[in-house]
Amino acid sequence: MKKQHLEDLLKQMTIDEKIGQLSQLATPFFKGSTESGKITGPLEQLNISDDLVKNTGSVLGASGAKEIRNIQEQHLKDHRLSIPLLFMSDIIHGYETIFPVPLGIGSSWDIELAEKSAEIAAKESAVSGIHVTFAPMVDLVRDPRWGRVMESTGEDSYLNSEFAKAQVRGFQGEDLTKDLHRLAACVKHFAAYGAAEAGRDYNTVNMSERQLREIYLPAFQAALDAGSKLVMTSFNTVDGIPATGNKKLMRDILRDEWGFDGVTITDWGALKELIPHGVAEDESEAAYKAIQAGVDIEMMTTCYPDHLKNLIENKEVEEELLNDAVRRILQLKNELGLFENPYRGLSEENEEKVILNEEHRKVAKELAAKSCVLLQNNNNTLPINTSQKVALIGPFAENNDILGPWSWKGNKDIAVTLTKGIEKRLNNKNQFIVAKGSEIESITKEQLQNAISAAEQSDIIVLALGEHSDMSGEAGSRSNIKLPDAQLQLVDEIYQLGKPTVAVLFNGRPLDLHGVFDKTDAVLEAWFPGTEGGTAITEILYGDVNPSGKLSMSFPYSVGQVPVYYNHYNTGRPQGASDAQVRYVSQFLDIPNEPLFPFGYGLSYTTFSYQNMRLSAPGITPDDTLQVKITVKNTGKIAGDETVQLYVRDMVGEVVRPLKELKGFKKIHLKPQEEMDVTFELTEKQLRYYHSDLNYDSDNGKFEVYVGPNSKEVHTLSFTLTK
Amino acid sequence: MKKQHLEDLLKQMTIDEKIGQLSQLATPFFKGSTESGKITGPLEQLNISDDLVKNTGSVLGASGAKEIRNIQEQHLKDHRLSIPLLFMSDIIHGYETIFPVPLGIGSSWDIELAEKSAEIAAKESAVSGIHVTFAPMVDLVRDPRWGRVMESTGEDSYLNSEFAKAQVRGFQGEDLTKDLHRLAACVKHFAAYGAAEAGRDYNTVNMSERQLREIYLPAFQAALDAGSKLVMTSFNTVDGIPATGNKKLMRDILRDEWGFDGVTITDWGALKELIPHGVAEDESEAAYKAIQAGVDIEMMTTCYPDHLKNLIENKEVEEELLNDAVRRILQLKNELGLFENPYRGLSEENEEKVILNEEHRKVAKELAAKSCVLLQNNNNTLPINTSQKVALIGPFAENNDILGPWSWKGNKDIAVTLTKGIEKRLNNKNQFIVAKGSEIESITKEQLQNAISAAEQSDIIVLALGEHSDMSGEAGSRSNIKLPDAQLQLVDEIYQLGKPTVAVLFNGRPLDLHGVFDKTDAVLEAWFPGTEGGTAITEILYGDVNPSGKLSMSFPYSVGQVPVYYNHYNTGRPQGASDAQVRYVSQFLDIPNEPLFPFGYGLSYTTFSYQNMRLSAPGITPDDTLQVKITVKNTGKIAGDETVQLYVRDMVGEVVRPLKELKGFKKIHLKPQEEMDVTFELTEKQLRYYHSDLNYDSDNGKFEVYVGPNSKEVHTLSFTLTK
Repeated sequence: MKKQHLEDLLKQMTIDEKIGQLSQLATPFFKGSTESGKITGPLEQLNISDDLVKNTGSVLGASGAKEIRNIQEQHLKDHRLSIPLLFMSDIIHGYETIFPVPLGIGSSWDIELAEKSAEIAAKESAVSGIHVTFAPMVDLVRDPRWGRVMESTGEDSYLNSEFAKAQVRGFQGEDLTKDLHRLAACVKHFAAYGAAEAGRDYNTVNMSERQLREIYLPAFQAALDAGSKLVMTSFNTVDGIPATGNKKLMRDILRDEWGFDGVTITDWGALKELIPHGVAEDESEAAYKAIQAGVDIEMMTTCYPDHLKNLIENKEVEEELLNDAVRRILQLKNELGLFENPYRGLSEENEEKVILNEEHRKVAKELAAKSCVLLQNNNNTLPINTSQKVALIGPFAENNDILGPWSWKGNKDIAVTLTKGIEKRLNNKNQFIVAKGSEIESITKEQLQNAISAAEQSDIIVLALGEHSDMSGEAGSRSNIKLPDAQLQLVDEIYQLGKPTVAVLFNGRPLDLHGVFDKTDAVLEAWFPGTEGGTAITEILYGDVNPSGKLSMSFPYSVGQVPVYYNHYNTGRPQGASDAQVRYVSQFLDIPNEPLFPFGYGLSYTTFSYQNMRLSAPGITPDDTLQVKITVKNTGKIAGDETVQLYVRDMVGEVVRPLKELKGFKKIHLKPQEEMDVTFELTEKQLRYYHSDLNYDSDNGKFEVYVGPNSKEVHTLSFTLTK
Repeated sequence: MKKQHLEDLLKQMTIDEKIGQLSQLATPFFKGSTESGKITGPLEQLNISDDLVKNTGSVLGASGAKEIRNIQEQHLKDHRLSIPLLFMSDIIHGYETIFPVPLGIGSSWDIELAEKSAEIAAKESAVSGIHVTFAPMVDLVRDPRWGRVMESTGEDSYLNSEFAKAQVRGFQGEDLTKDLHRLAACVKHFAAYGAAEAGRDYNTVNMSERQLREIYLPAFQAALDAGSKLVMTSFNTVDGIPATGNKKLMRDILRDEWGFDGVTITDWGALKELIPHGVAEDESEAAYKAIQAGVDIEMMTTCYPDHLKNLIENKEVEEELLNDAVRRILQLKNELGLFENPYRGLSEENEEKVILNEEHRKVAKELAAKSCVLLQNNNNTLPINTSQKVALIGPFAENNDILGPWSWKGNKDIAVTLTKGIEKRLNNKNQFIVAKGSEIESITKEQLQNAISAAEQSDIIVLALGEHSDMSGEAGSRSNIKLPDAQLQLVDEIYQLGKPTVAVLFNGRPLDLHGVFDKTDAVLEAWFPGTEGGTAITEILYGDVNPSGKLSMSFPYSVGQVPVYYNHYNTGRPQGASDAQVRYVSQFLDIPNEPLFPFGYGLSYTTFSYQNMRLSAPGITPDDTLQVKITVKNTGKIAGDETVQLYVRDMVGEVVRPLKELKGFKKIHLKPQEEMDVTFELTEKQLRYYHSDLNYDSDNGKFEVYVGPNSKEVHTLSFTLTK
């Protein structure tokens, strides 16, 4: 539809029809839905009228070509102007083919494969009739108590930005209108949701605007640069004002400064939550604040439908604000081609062909393997030799709860458990014995006995441990980030046997691994690996695939160390300084400052040397490009992938600068004894940061540049910037 | 000296002499000091020239009339213009008569006694020759990992403000020039030092300016309103800029906005720390940034002496900036009367009479008792009846490490241990048996055996537990805030005996008391109680004094809950709301949101009822005063003190408002069955807060007002403000 036609349409709409476009309701409210009329509990409390449903602009959580076709058909009949519905759903890390949780994807450092996974998720969703996914989630995370860290790619704004762009590209493709296999992306949660105080979900966020811009906003900008069509507001406050009613955030920064002209949408119920937040007295004031702030779609509450008309009639809100919002929503529908083809990519015939097809599962397997991080491998305990008899012990041995949170369309029954994965791999079933060992949060004597007996019969023990998927995810905050005691007891009992032991971890957050890493020989962090998890992990355990994942979020020493992240500041009294006093330095008395496993860390079955780091020049001007070169060699006996990481430090800033900032990375593949020159380019632009006056600029002076296999073990050179 | 004379003096000074006034050095550099010439370690690295010492304006850490007289005498001879030295020291909670640590004083809610303790500290210091104390420390604290919480009066800006004013009054008196028994106060640490990330001392601080003003600055304003002569900078950054080089903080807010014309001083070495912070390339730039920011005195580094002259000669720094600083320092010396009497209040003859005299010790005892917080008293286990045979067990039974950090002039050998206190109290020594039980951080089988044997012979067990004083205080950050395992084991073993057990805690931070409160009948938080600690605690244990302390800082459920504080926000998804979902609320999966013991909490040996809360009007205008009345009755059998607390909530704010804010409190004394009407007054002024545009104002609309014995158990009424 042409722009002028959209304007004509807008002019024909009544105020109720306009407001309807700003409303998003869950599937059961719609005729044609399989759950049609199942309006109970919180849905019932919403008190939704038939008129509102008729005028509503978008649907939350529908799926399946048949259902969506039915709802759309019915709606086009019922709507006076036959404006098609938008179908939006949470497609976070796969539709039915489930990829690892985003924190796992972050650990892959594989931007292309991340994009591919988003593309596959889009394909499966699009054929099922969905138009918009509430992804990517790009919230930067520093506190593993927060359950939603599993939904983020990690603690670094640059790495998150790369993944944000990749996911938007993967979801949206090059031309959303023409490519019916794609979804519109909705980057979330704007903004700083990941900084919830004490890691308690939905909790207060407070930081300076400078920190907000430096740390928390870049990945949003990246997603918008990549073309994300929508932005979702976050539940939290930002400096005292809930994001969903935050004019500065949503209108001043997002729209006016960044020029975003796409659709904004609240998170579930967040508009009405302005009331419990205490910044709106009632629904009318909530509606007022949200529309002023620039919020277009209200999800799952009815402050707009119930009050916006009144506010406009009373001249408290200008109708043009409403028109702007409707215009953006219609424009989105138009970009999706819905006026011409309200059914877009949905196809009942194609669903079976597309969903969970071999290629998709193959990518899921590949990404699951690349997400695995080998945290420890003493005495080359891994890989397992097929001649070794394996005892697979633990609550995740046969557990199919490995898809992780936010995988609502994923089918656990087809998820490959680790037991299934190993069984598939082995010709000789006698080489493999399984025992549950414990439940996730409890253990019986019998379970323990059976575990010990299995362990005693084996040459090597694989402990499959972790958190069930409800222990992380939304509202999955935990004050204790160790494995449950039952599993720690299991580890300890197995440890007493003195046999080679490998821990494989299924979980959605960095854990305090005391009681695990110190009582096992090898530790493989597998996250929630998705549909093909068991296969992928088996391939790593047996050396078919050489692990290459690197942590994108630090593993703390203990919860008392939190927050801990690699790109911290030096402080005025840094630990380890040459002139440091014994006591009066910034440190804990009882634990180190360093995390247990740092950002960027992960082992391989081979080893890599880093040598001969050199710079193309001793300094640069804003017109130059500095080349940073290093020679990386596979010094081991098998081929492997390595993620070579580039960090920079501005030695003297106008405000304090992080000790290291990731500025680039390259994934390389090296055969045994092969070596390769890896080259990074650095320009003045990459050295800019927000000064105290919020000016984004670089400083003259000295910089250090670091290259290495992780954020800790690096080679160092320095250069100057002269402007 | 008249102002004009000061100006004349200033004009006579060479630039080196001026810069010397900006320098503060430790005692050993000065001739006449008992440690004269003991220049080793870090002091040696400073490379201080004799010329600098000669011109130096102030001395750090000297004490004793004789020493200070000697140093001053020598200095007046050596200084070309005979400008007297200022003697500054850390007199934090007493000089030789040691009062409880400030967190204990905070728990007393006794403003008058806090003032009295500061007055006594001033008297003892002044007679010993000291002119300035680096107190009060008014940093608001929310993270018990931070070791310096012991040095703060707690987590509330109003309560801290009241204590800040009281301490300044106590130190300075009404007329510092005339009253030679007083000290100049130096409020610290400006600002927001208490918000160190992860509770790790000296660590980064980040928050919005609005939060800074709302939460962290009020107690500084209060101290300055009360006339504090000096301000000390803090070690931390504030929004990326170290406080010591923070122009916005030190010049824009402190000097220009608040009109502070007193002396600013860095914390120890903090000026040069601009270099490790990464905002100054070298000492010269550090000096440049600090003088621009408005820092007058540089403590214990030599960036000013070594570089300021050059900076002025090169026209990088205006000499008038230096003159301003010198003028303020000379003015302070003048206010102390040093030009007329460089020896001020010092008196070797009077030292013995004044220091540690009976009256001072009596106040120390009274304040120690009032600082004790009875956290639990199941089955009225306390007070102890003298007929009961007591086993006093634990590493603090006979430990004299009860003065706490920052009590350098305190003499542990005269501190009354709990054993001594009880021995003094009892006529019959057979009623009392002592066993160490464990060390603070270790335990032997023999210790345990002896403890059990002692316990078995007794009717009631008193466990004297805690942290040694180095486990909190400056640089005393801990990730684990439970008692050490050895003591938890001791508690558990005693618990097995099933006898009445009381835990008395000696420590400097809120602890996670799991393993203590759940295994004892009564818990008495005694903090580091100071010189008369054992006597004061004994009086409480035996009921001679009825405990009345109330926590001024929340005791967290566990370290994974931190930060936790009473005046938090509601969030958009509060736990416990009537329409709350089961999962999707702001909560931890594994622990409650509430702390173990909340702000304002503390028991008595009697009970109090709160009844008939009423307001003088349903609403107020800015011209009115609302009276909030409640009837409090002592419903028990013994007399007792109660701290009645007043809280307010602004139901709808322009920014989110705390669920409760302390606005007043009254300490009352009630005989058994006595009742009293307690009246609070509220005006519009008390309802103001910082809006998003930093405007400090109140809102029209509804407020709730709460009165009760702590921040949790309150009576509620509401009123409106109409402007």
